[in-house]
Amino acid sequence: MDIAIINTWLMTFSGKALGIISNGALGIEEDKISYVGTTDGLNYKQADKVIDGTDHITMPGLINSHTHTGVTLLRGGAQDLPEIEWMNKGLGPFMKWLTANDHIIGTKLAVLEGLRSGTTTFAEYAGFVSKLVKQVYLPFNVRVVAIETLNEVSSDRAHLKPTDLYDFDGAKGSAALKRANDIFQEFKGNKLVSSMYGPQALDFCSVPLLLDIQQQAIDRGCKLHMHVAQGERERLQITNRFGKNQTTIKILEKNGLLSDRLVAAHIHDTSVDERSLMVKRGVGMVGCPSAISMIDGIVPPLGHYMKLGGNAAIGTDQAPGPGHHNMFQEMRMASVLTKVINKDPTALPPWESLQLTTIGGARVLGLDKSIGSLEVGKRADIITINLKKLNLTPIVEKPIRNFIPNLVYSTTGNEVDNVIINGNQIISNNQFSNIDELSIIKEANKRAKIIFENAAEDWIEAGSKMVSYHQNGFL
Amino acid sequence: MDIAIINTWLMTFSGKALGIISNGALGIEEDKISYVGTTDGLNYKQADKVIDGTDHITMPGLINSHTHTGVTLLRGGAQDLPEIEWMNKGLGPFMKWLTANDHIIGTKLAVLEGLRSGTTTFAEYAGFVSKLVKQVYLPFNVRVVAIETLNEVSSDRAHLKPTDLYDFDGAKGSAALKRANDIFQEFKGNKLVSSMYGPQALDFCSVPLLLDIQQQAIDRGCKLHMHVAQGERERLQITNRFGKNQTTIKILEKNGLLSDRLVAAHIHDTSVDERSLMVKRGVGMVGCPSAISMIDGIVPPLGHYMKLGGNAAIGTDQAPGPGHHNMFQEMRMASVLTKVINKDPTALPPWESLQLTTIGGARVLGLDKSIGSLEVGKRADIITINLKKLNLTPIVEKPIRNFIPNLVYSTTGNEVDNVIINGNQIISNNQFSNIDELSIIKEANKRAKIIFENAAEDWIEAGSKMVSYHQNGFL
Repeated sequence: MDIAIINTWLMTFSGKALGIISNGALGIEEDKISYVGTTDGLNYKQADKVIDGTDHITMPGLINSHTHTGVTLLRGGAQDLPEIEWMNKGLGPFMKWLTANDHIIGTKLAVLEGLRSGTTTFAEYAGFVSKLVKQVYLPFNVRVVAIETLNEVSSDRAHLKPTDLYDFDGAKGSAALKRANDIFQEFKGNKLVSSMYGPQALDFCSVPLLLDIQQQAIDRGCKLHMHVAQGERERLQITNRFGKNQTTIKILEKNGLLSDRLVAAHIHDTSVDERSLMVKRGVGMVGCPSAISMIDGIVPPLGHYMKLGGNAAIGTDQAPGPGHHNMFQEMRMASVLTKVINKDPTALPPWESLQLTTIGGARVLGLDKSIGSLEVGKRADIITINLKKLNLTPIVEKPIRNFIPNLVYSTTGNEVDNVIINGNQIISNNQFSNIDELSIIKEANKRAKIIFENAAEDWIEAGSKMVSYHQNGFL
Repeated sequence: MDIAIINTWLMTFSGKALGIISNGALGIEEDKISYVGTTDGLNYKQADKVIDGTDHITMPGLINSHTHTGVTLLRGGAQDLPEIEWMNKGLGPFMKWLTANDHIIGTKLAVLEGLRSGTTTFAEYAGFVSKLVKQVYLPFNVRVVAIETLNEVSSDRAHLKPTDLYDFDGAKGSAALKRANDIFQEFKGNKLVSSMYGPQALDFCSVPLLLDIQQQAIDRGCKLHMHVAQGERERLQITNRFGKNQTTIKILEKNGLLSDRLVAAHIHDTSVDERSLMVKRGVGMVGCPSAISMIDGIVPPLGHYMKLGGNAAIGTDQAPGPGHHNMFQEMRMASVLTKVINKDPTALPPWESLQLTTIGGARVLGLDKSIGSLEVGKRADIITINLKKLNLTPIVEKPIRNFIPNLVYSTTGNEVDNVIINGNQIISNNQFSNIDELSIIKEANKRAKIIFENAAEDWIEAGSKMVSYHQNGFL
């Protein structure tokens, strides 16, 4: 045995509930879990390394099921804007100055932030995602779902009114599809990487392209991950293209694109009936609580989708907007936001938020046979959380385990002290084993300064509300 | 000069905006701020201690304007319950077993958690608050607003239906008033303590008692801090006592109790007109974003009250419910919750949340002449935040200071590394100077185990939803 964690509360997520084991122990052999049970039953003295899990929870690493980490250098750059300004006037002027290398630095920053707060799998949604995989995820030994963005819309859309239809460029779609296909070859058999197609959204892809992608996904036995029903701008394109009463869900259904092969991000612009249909078809959803709340003022329908019996998961989207890649914070946000939007303090209780970021995420991403719960034979993606902290005190086991709500409502993310991915210990006792985080912070600060200063003129000219916030001394 | 902080971003809160000073410095002489300006203008080499504030924000310590810290040992004990069950079936069975000493341990825990996350002033609302002041706040050198709870309702209300009027016991009210008056004598002239009357709520006090308290508050030049318009249960008492169309605000107005002497906590059960009237009368409000969201499923009207021009502040209430005493988390919650409830991503931007916890809190508590902003002559209640953290990277100053939104949206609270209260440095470089936090955690865990086990039978008998959550393996 390579690693044994003993004397701990195991939160296994086996079965319908949390599958808690008191005085539990976990054994790891190479890249897999070899023992899940009580400490008594494990001959842990044989292990190369023994981690004492006293006053700790040991659980599956968290799964960030939808994220664009490449823009992390723009954190805090587009905030508190009207939704209509966020992308073009807020983020746009800075985006233009981000180099390919800046995306890599951004991904490094986000992945380290995620690791520190317990994330072990990132569903990375990006153009040229292969670079991020090779230059960040693999060197850092981190599990990634590589999702290559595919779209066939001309990037030059600034001159269009929201009611103007986007132009499609078939060659662009084909090039992206080729890039995506290459990724499957490139990382075939890699234990840390799985791949998906990432058709950006129905307003960004033609139906024939989507059908083509779906067929290839069927051939490869993989999924499609798509932004679905994101709101006003998408709706305008859909009604203009397909007719007044059409919606994204209607078009996807008509073309046989709603299935358990589809991972649908956001879906806040859907009716109750549409969500029921999606659940019936086996579509998985990913909600990004902070991102959609802060960019759109909308709470993603995670609670509703779970209530309907659907598979749901949580993502952080990107740093500008929500401000972080911290899945503990996202669990708290998911629960609290769902409570207020339903005016119901019992809505989305902590165990549901915990499921969304573990076994739920694994199911949505099609990885539940290998990660998401603690079971013998699954990959060893494990985190421990130190409960012996002021904000997590007291720890009580009877008559209830108060540390379960506290894990969602009181934890900041900094209490994660050991992180193991695929059997490799990435963080031990709060310290990265092989990563110099300060040098990455330094590089990020250096590059961000240049990007923001280069963009300053464009940013002022774009004239978002942030410009006036700044002029009034608030930013 | 005793302490100089140099090379820092000062967030002064002087003027209407944030009053940022780049490459700033702050001087402290005994218990007061002696210099606020640029580093160039300060002869800091004369200082006994120099703190290098490079890559740090230096700002006023945060003000927690409404909290009951004494029940912190019950953290995680009453969560995800219907509002009607929370107090009696959820918290009640455990409350009975809390000794006076347990309240002191709870307060210690909460105050240390608050200090670690940047809170330097606590508006402590409790029965027998004097004990908490003497045994926790003064030994720890922490600023406190001591608010003695006053009510004259018999504690034995379990047998009453919500529609039954509470019995008043004048003797109980008089005893509480005497206790409150004693506090003013006891802490007179103490630089860390100011005092207020804490009439619990209109359903818990007769109008004559309230008028008596108000007169004494006028005589002493102090404020009244009261729970106001908290919802269904209060409303039932008010309409039953005063008539069908009556509300808390109408009764307070009729009796001349709405004034700038009143601090009103919560106020979510008020109409738009009532809030306008409160603002006109100069009433200050305190909202508790996590607490009210998680216990009632309601977002406190902080944004609305500020929009009306009222003085507003934020509090953490108590650990069970919101789960923490972390004011950085509360700033994030305040902004995000206000955005979704107004479907407006521009609502309650970060500078407003920052004002709510600094100068806004000071105004509501009547302490704005001495704390809440960085000005020469004010008390030295100062915190520094280390921005050189993964989750706060990058740091950019031009064309906007991205660290201002990041301070609210990306900070967990753990980035606070220096805490100074009244000129005393309580936390240096992330470490408490004179407090052994692990021994307090240990004591808290020991006591909580006993309390929860003692209460187990009552708790099961009370039969809240948490009992079934537990039976189904979720807790």
